[in-house]
Amino acid sequence: MLLLAYMHFCFPQLPRKFIREEINMMKECLENVRGKKPLIHNITNYVTVNDVANVLLACGASPIMSDDPDEVEEITSICGGLAINIGTLNKNTIPSMFLAGKMSNKLRHKVLLDPVGAGASRLRTDTAVKLMNEIKFNVIRGNISEVKTLALGSGSTKGVDADVADAVTEDSLDDAVRFVKEFAKKAGCIVAVTGAIDLVSDGDECYVIRNGRPEMGRITGTGCQLSALITAYIVANPDNELEATAAAVCAMGLAGEIGWKNMQPNEGNTAYRNRIIDAIYNMDGKTLEEGAKYEIR
Amino acid sequence: MLLLAYMHFCFPQLPRKFIREEINMMKECLENVRGKKPLIHNITNYVTVNDVANVLLACGASPIMSDDPDEVEEITSICGGLAINIGTLNKNTIPSMFLAGKMSNKLRHKVLLDPVGAGASRLRTDTAVKLMNEIKFNVIRGNISEVKTLALGSGSTKGVDADVADAVTEDSLDDAVRFVKEFAKKAGCIVAVTGAIDLVSDGDECYVIRNGRPEMGRITGTGCQLSALITAYIVANPDNELEATAAAVCAMGLAGEIGWKNMQPNEGNTAYRNRIIDAIYNMDGKTLEEGAKYEIR
Amino acid sequence: MLLLAYMHFCFPQLPRKFIREEINMMKECLENVRGKKPLIHNITNYVTVNDVANVLLACGASPIMSDDPDEVEEITSICGGLAINIGTLNKNTIPSMFLAGKMSNKLRHKVLLDPVGAGASRLRTDTAVKLMNEIKFNVIRGNISEVKTLALGSGSTKGVDADVADAVTEDSLDDAVRFVKEFAKKAGCIVAVTGAIDLVSDGDECYVIRNGRPEMGRITGTGCQLSALITAYIVANPDNELEATAAAVCAMGLAGEIGWKNMQPNEGNTAYRNRIIDAIYNMDGKTLEEGAKYEIR
Repeated sequence: MLLLAYMHFCFPQLPRKFIREEINMMKECLENVRGKKPLIHNITNYVTVNDVANVLLACGASPIMSDDPDEVEEITSICGGLAINIGTLNKNTIPSMFLAGKMSNKLRHKVLLDPVGAGASRLRTDTAVKLMNEIKFNVIRGNISEVKTLALGSGSTKGVDADVADAVTEDSLDDAVRFVKEFAKKAGCIVAVTGAIDLVSDGDECYVIRNGRPEMGRITGTGCQLSALITAYIVANPDNELEATAAAVCAMGLAGEIGWKNMQPNEGNTAYRNRIIDAIYNMDGKTLEEGAKYEIR
Repeated sequence: MLLLAYMHFCFPQLPRKFIREEINMMKECLENVRGKKPLIHNITNYVTVNDVANVLLACGASPIMSDDPDEVEEITSICGGLAINIGTLNKNTIPSMFLAGKMSNKLRHKVLLDPVGAGASRLRTDTAVKLMNEIKFNVIRGNISEVKTLALGSGSTKGVDADVADAVTEDSLDDAVRFVKEFAKKAGCIVAVTGAIDLVSDGDECYVIRNGRPEMGRITGTGCQLSALITAYIVANPDNELEATAAAVCAMGLAGEIGWKNMQPNEGNTAYRNRIIDAIYNMDGKTLEEGAKYEIR
Repeated sequence: MLLLAYMHFCFPQLPRKFIREEINMMKECLENVRGKKPLIHNITNYVTVNDVANVLLACGASPIMSDDPDEVEEITSICGGLAINIGTLNKNTIPSMFLAGKMSNKLRHKVLLDPVGAGASRLRTDTAVKLMNEIKFNVIRGNISEVKTLALGSGSTKGVDADVADAVTEDSLDDAVRFVKEFAKKAGCIVAVTGAIDLVSDGDECYVIRNGRPEMGRITGTGCQLSALITAYIVANPDNELEATAAAVCAMGLAGEIGWKNMQPNEGNTAYRNRIIDAIYNMDGKTLEEGAKYEIR
């Protein structure tokens, strides 16, 4: 980081992207997670919670799951960051999301929102919007339909998967980049929209990431896992949230590519799920740096 | 389907079974799931929920899990069908089962009941019986002990597994077929009783299915997965509920056979769990049609 | 057991350890689980619940998960033993822990406490301490930080993993053995403290167990699985709780060693999780007897 500051000082005309590549930003982000082993508090859904815990352990972080209002403030206080995932929100866990989020803000911890299924019910949309209004998030990560719902403050999606009509493709890319930048600026945080092409923006710049494989959509929980991974990355790289978020998104997509390459005969989506988390477990900084496919717009 | 109607019209004396085989009914059922990608709402237990989500994705459907009373009516409205599984029922999820079930009935969606552990506690028995009374189910799937409990309106089972005394064997098969037919008639829906031999009846006919392996009993959740799979099959084959249910039961059993064949040295029940779901992922219509072992009584 | 009593009668001067080895105590404990197939009631967390169910099935036992106050007394009544794990405790499940625990005591069923994260929040610490005060446990199993919290009646830990400062190492072993013996005496039950070195004591003797691998810490849920495994072992070996607990701890550690040996190229922590449970599935009494590495102090 000192080097980045120094280079930025000496060569202000040098594009940030160039500097980032020179100093192996992605590699550094990954290695900081392994070195610092951040403890991440997850208020999350019971569908993919085991995979979320294992992906955090795989990347070098530690998970703690806790969602009762009577303890979430204390639990989040001993953690480095908080990931709020509304995948199976209910009467008992919604108040916990607000309590833990506000305590995290007070302690200046990193907080991420994964608005699973926003748009699919008023409860989900309203909870996500209210969370955005009352809590300062560092990162919001969702699919394009969920994020559009947040941007509009309302909406309708077809379940927990992105609506085909909304999909970010090469054709719709310019519009999508503009939308994500604008929403990031409005929301005052980093926004990560993931799908066939992933977009990560802080309002000024936008990473356009082309890692991953379509078969990842046939596994439950790759999105939830990525949200937890991003949280670990921003906690371990507190001064480079944008790069850290992009690095986590690249890492997950690259793990999807590596996991697919490792598939054996007769394996299907559960083997693939395991192979992706195992690829995160075995990934080193050099592999991430070399395998990350992104451009900055 | 038109062909079936036509043949049935031309040759009323031809057994339905024969016609079904001629037109590759099982193959068609599977392919309809892959083609229509039905979205299935699951109110289910937290033990096997991840496997349920992955098996739905494996067969070509999409899962959504949601169990808070404040949103289940909306969530079920955007889905094609609903699977209610009482495996870890509680105060918050029981009302959701009734709300979602009634809304599904109103919208003429397909609804399945998996009465996990009915007979093991009054709460389970009473909830399952009350659900049957207030909601019109398309399919009820359970083990023989659970289904006997429903038939009696009371009962005692030894946990969530079938009582050995109740087991459907070649010796007790005639009685079991009679029982399942009668209960299906009384309940006014398809009843699937699964175990060493699986029985699927609409009250008139009964599929006697001999796919599967005994080692499937050493994995948690094959029953829950099957219930979700059946729901996807009946949603994608709305006019052939009986055949679709039988096809899903055959598919699960056949996946158990294929998964076992794919086992590698030193693997055990968790590898087997994955290999079964992976077999569902890789199964095509021809494989199902040829591998299904059933007779109709 | 008769043989043990007989030998103890004939050779009172013979160390119990010697006798135990002669009669293959570990082997016998494992085989009793396979033979008796105990049904275990689990009130547990939703993070690792699926692995807990599968490890119980792997060892030859049967799991049932149930945590609503309206049914836990009935459910626990039909089971052989109860494992209470506070990993994701909440308002609805805490009363269930007390109801089920008290009913188990009344029926003289075996009961185990896994105080996950005790020390990380007042809710966890207070609940664990209150459970200890109101319910007679046969075994308490936790990491050293959690158990120290229980011994003090208060404390602070760093999440759900043991604090490094507390770790049981060869250097701190004497102190740790003394602590565990004293706490077991005070608590009036068997105490199992697991980590790099595992300690199992009834207050008089202490098994010092050196099975396992450090990589087990990179998987979520090996502790929860072990707690369930111990419960199955003590239910199936009711008159030898100390030996049964030690046997289960050795079995889990040995499964960690076997699972690691079975790892294939590019596998990581999720493959390792599966390979450990699969090793429990394939383990026979002879393997356990020969692979168990322990001394008694």
